[in-house]
Amino acid sequence: MVSWKNFDELKTYSKLMELGDKVDLASAMAGENGAKRVAEYCVSMSGGLVYNYASKKVDDKVLSVLQELADEAQLTEKYAELFNGAMINTGEKRLVLHQLCRGQLGNAVVADGVDKRAFYTEQQAKIAEFAARVHSGEIANAAGEKFTTVVQIGIGGSDLGPRAMYIALENWAKKNNAFKMEAKFISNVDPDDAASVLASIDVAHSLFILVSKSGTTLETLTNESFVKDALKNAGLDASKHMIAVTSETSPLAKSSDYLAAFFMDDYIGGRYSSTSAVGGAVLSLAFGPEIFARFLDGAAAEDKLDTNADIRKNPALLDALIGVYERNVLGYEATAVLPYSQALSRFPAHLQQLDMESNGKSVNRFSQPVSYKTGPVIFGEPGTNGQHSFYQLLHQGTDIIPLQFVGFKQNQTECDVVIQGSTSQQKLCANVAAQIMAFACGKDDENPNKFFAGGRPSSIIVGDRLTPEALGAILAHFENKVMFQGFVWNLNSFDQEGVQLGKVLAKKVLAHETDGALKAYSDLLAI
Amino acid sequence: MVSWKNFDELKTYSKLMELGDKVDLASAMAGENGAKRVAEYCVSMSGGLVYNYASKKVDDKVLSVLQELADEAQLTEKYAELFNGAMINTGEKRLVLHQLCRGQLGNAVVADGVDKRAFYTEQQAKIAEFAARVHSGEIANAAGEKFTTVVQIGIGGSDLGPRAMYIALENWAKKNNAFKMEAKFISNVDPDDAASVLASIDVAHSLFILVSKSGTTLETLTNESFVKDALKNAGLDASKHMIAVTSETSPLAKSSDYLAAFFMDDYIGGRYSSTSAVGGAVLSLAFGPEIFARFLDGAAAEDKLDTNADIRKNPALLDALIGVYERNVLGYEATAVLPYSQALSRFPAHLQQLDMESNGKSVNRFSQPVSYKTGPVIFGEPGTNGQHSFYQLLHQGTDIIPLQFVGFKQNQTECDVVIQGSTSQQKLCANVAAQIMAFACGKDDENPNKFFAGGRPSSIIVGDRLTPEALGAILAHFENKVMFQGFVWNLNSFDQEGVQLGKVLAKKVLAHETDGALKAYSDLLAI
Repeated sequence: MVSWKNFDELKTYSKLMELGDKVDLASAMAGENGAKRVAEYCVSMSGGLVYNYASKKVDDKVLSVLQELADEAQLTEKYAELFNGAMINTGEKRLVLHQLCRGQLGNAVVADGVDKRAFYTEQQAKIAEFAARVHSGEIANAAGEKFTTVVQIGIGGSDLGPRAMYIALENWAKKNNAFKMEAKFISNVDPDDAASVLASIDVAHSLFILVSKSGTTLETLTNESFVKDALKNAGLDASKHMIAVTSETSPLAKSSDYLAAFFMDDYIGGRYSSTSAVGGAVLSLAFGPEIFARFLDGAAAEDKLDTNADIRKNPALLDALIGVYERNVLGYEATAVLPYSQALSRFPAHLQQLDMESNGKSVNRFSQPVSYKTGPVIFGEPGTNGQHSFYQLLHQGTDIIPLQFVGFKQNQTECDVVIQGSTSQQKLCANVAAQIMAFACGKDDENPNKFFAGGRPSSIIVGDRLTPEALGAILAHFENKVMFQGFVWNLNSFDQEGVQLGKVLAKKVLAHETDGALKAYSDLLAI
Repeated sequence: MVSWKNFDELKTYSKLMELGDKVDLASAMAGENGAKRVAEYCVSMSGGLVYNYASKKVDDKVLSVLQELADEAQLTEKYAELFNGAMINTGEKRLVLHQLCRGQLGNAVVADGVDKRAFYTEQQAKIAEFAARVHSGEIANAAGEKFTTVVQIGIGGSDLGPRAMYIALENWAKKNNAFKMEAKFISNVDPDDAASVLASIDVAHSLFILVSKSGTTLETLTNESFVKDALKNAGLDASKHMIAVTSETSPLAKSSDYLAAFFMDDYIGGRYSSTSAVGGAVLSLAFGPEIFARFLDGAAAEDKLDTNADIRKNPALLDALIGVYERNVLGYEATAVLPYSQALSRFPAHLQQLDMESNGKSVNRFSQPVSYKTGPVIFGEPGTNGQHSFYQLLHQGTDIIPLQFVGFKQNQTECDVVIQGSTSQQKLCANVAAQIMAFACGKDDENPNKFFAGGRPSSIIVGDRLTPEALGAILAHFENKVMFQGFVWNLNSFDQEGVQLGKVLAKKVLAHETDGALKAYSDLLAI
């Protein structure tokens, strides 16, 4: 039986605090010892990836205390509780089953009288069948022509993850004869978002996916109306151009407004829904169900690795624990995610939601206030772009920001050019290697303006190429990292009560039921 | 004569520190007092905008000390020094003249024997003439057909600002018959960036702008080769499809490889170059030179407002001082930029460079270490998208993150839809008003999971519509804010020594001149 305790109630908490800022990173990474660390501080992930943490401020002593923490906090036991169907989302009294969309790690999970693994695979099979019929032209527009574009209408988890995954695989799919349909995304309630996407597509050849678990998300329903108007204005029957991804109990589930409906349920949180029907419909339509299945396989293999109780063999657990050490012992308040891959350009925005919405909380899973820092700010842009932007602060600013690099040996398009004796891909990789060392070791200089203190920790995930399997592994890695950190901090990482108050007040503004400053702001904005 | 002192050497420094966390924001914003603050704590900007700071943790006492700080630190006098041509960029021994691209606030500035205002306006006139000839078809491709697409090749300041400005005005231009050519951007050395942009355009009808002040930026030259190969493979003469924006002394300036060259100089920092030829060429080609001129007018008017020594009448100065108070007195480490406008989707990425590269420093303008915090982390995404993502942490996380909202009464495309009695634009505006109040006042609840502490400060810039003038005003506002903060912290906000070390090490990697950990990382990445 697992025991849910606050982080600062654990015996290991004070032991960890006593470690303090123990490792002089610049020294540790200098000379042959540095090379040894790069070789040793490296864990295999699935999809041919490795997680290398040589440039983190850890040594064997720190790692041994982190292992004690993992053991005392029963982190892998809690993961097992989760995938075996315990009610981990205490606030909303729900199971947490996103891993079950891609594999089964433990017992059969039966909820609401249904085997949940069977339910998720059934939805995937239905989506696969539907996508095949769209691709073959069996499901076509009124003129009998094939659909060429798929447009996802959703916000938050129904947008950021699927969009980031689509961008991540678009060029790979084009190179590998797996590109079936272009995908676009409408998310914002700003009417210019829908208007500009609609202006960029041919609605007569477009299939729209309405994604809302509850079927009541205001932004999404508003944008649905926008789209329906556009279809109507083009003389088209909207119900022949739209499908829904929703829960079985939602008003959308059985509506004749849609060609088809595919289901998720309350046990899949929005930010964890990329491997459910939420990501499955758009990615299967864009790239084909086989590619989506490969993406799931990469995630499932990573989920399995992350069950290992040995932190040196469990990349997500180790990454989580190092992050806790950085946040609570070293006091760092933000983390930058820096993929050296243009394909991952929106991956930081997805991680920003995943991490900040899961662990940006001040109460524990029993709704009691905690007295330690929880989730950090997450931000990032692809390298090398970031090097020419905010890296100045990362190198020489007054705060230390831990860095998460991602890099691949080969590019997706397999197009490249040799300039000054090296390919662009080599330049890209050379830059990330150089940055890691610049951050870790710095550089002495008698001119303080050119002095780099170093001691700025980073880790890197390295793969051969960003394939569907590799992407699935990276996604699952971060989902599981966030989950483990939530366990350490004793949070419920699966609700989001912090988004409710704004919704309530916005309704009041629209109903003109305001006074005081809220009325004054409404007037300022001419509502 | 101005005196350059460290922040903590000023008399007002201790006075400011003694203020501490003085204002209980939730109380201040409650009831009619809150409405009064919204009315009073509001400054006019140019372009019909206002900067409203009612929900910042200031009161008349805090503002009076901030005024003392502005006076003692001679902030507007230093601005006057800058626009009158003093050598403000001490590290690189350069003038700082980006404001001179859009107007003249003081004396004529003569450098290198040239009247610099005349030089910048001459470049604008040349760009305008060139753009008109492209739009008319006088400058056309080898088949005599009009160019339809313009592709900017640049990185950092040659990419982020111009790209953000293009996205900001694209829909407005389409609605207002000012859309001349589609613009695309290639920045990353990742070969998949150039490959995918090239695959998305018709190179035969594309004009490429190579942007590099020095003419030696590795990423940009590499991507130029990529593009030249593509043009050659399409049987086209690259020199008839490319123009350059560079300095007069660069190797690109007089090359026959380009149809034309337009110039900036060493007095325009990359991140301050959106109103120079760097932004001018692409924006004049995309929207016409008249629209670019209107953008400059908005910026120039804002520059002028920002000369006012009264902080309550100088929005950039006030914003800067409140930011310093939040950073150095209240101890907040990050700031979120949250535009409620999809058109500003990349504006946070531009501000991230502008702010973090300018003020992310640990030495003062005389290269001496400082002992106070300088520039914060800047991140953000458009609302309402962010509400469904990282706002959870902003509302209920363990750190307080100050927020910068931007909103407009009307949308750009003038398309909208009424659902449940309100337009999408009204919903968008209602949400931003609601969020400000939710962050400021919070909500009591007996369930701590649904409790919002409030006390989370924000300001908002509000305009009628995002026009070229409004965009210019917003851009100049933040450029000047960052400048004033640099003055308070006694930094050189115009160099970026922190980007050098990585470049040096990357060259070593590519030359295989590495050992130790750098060699180990190079091997890991198969370079």
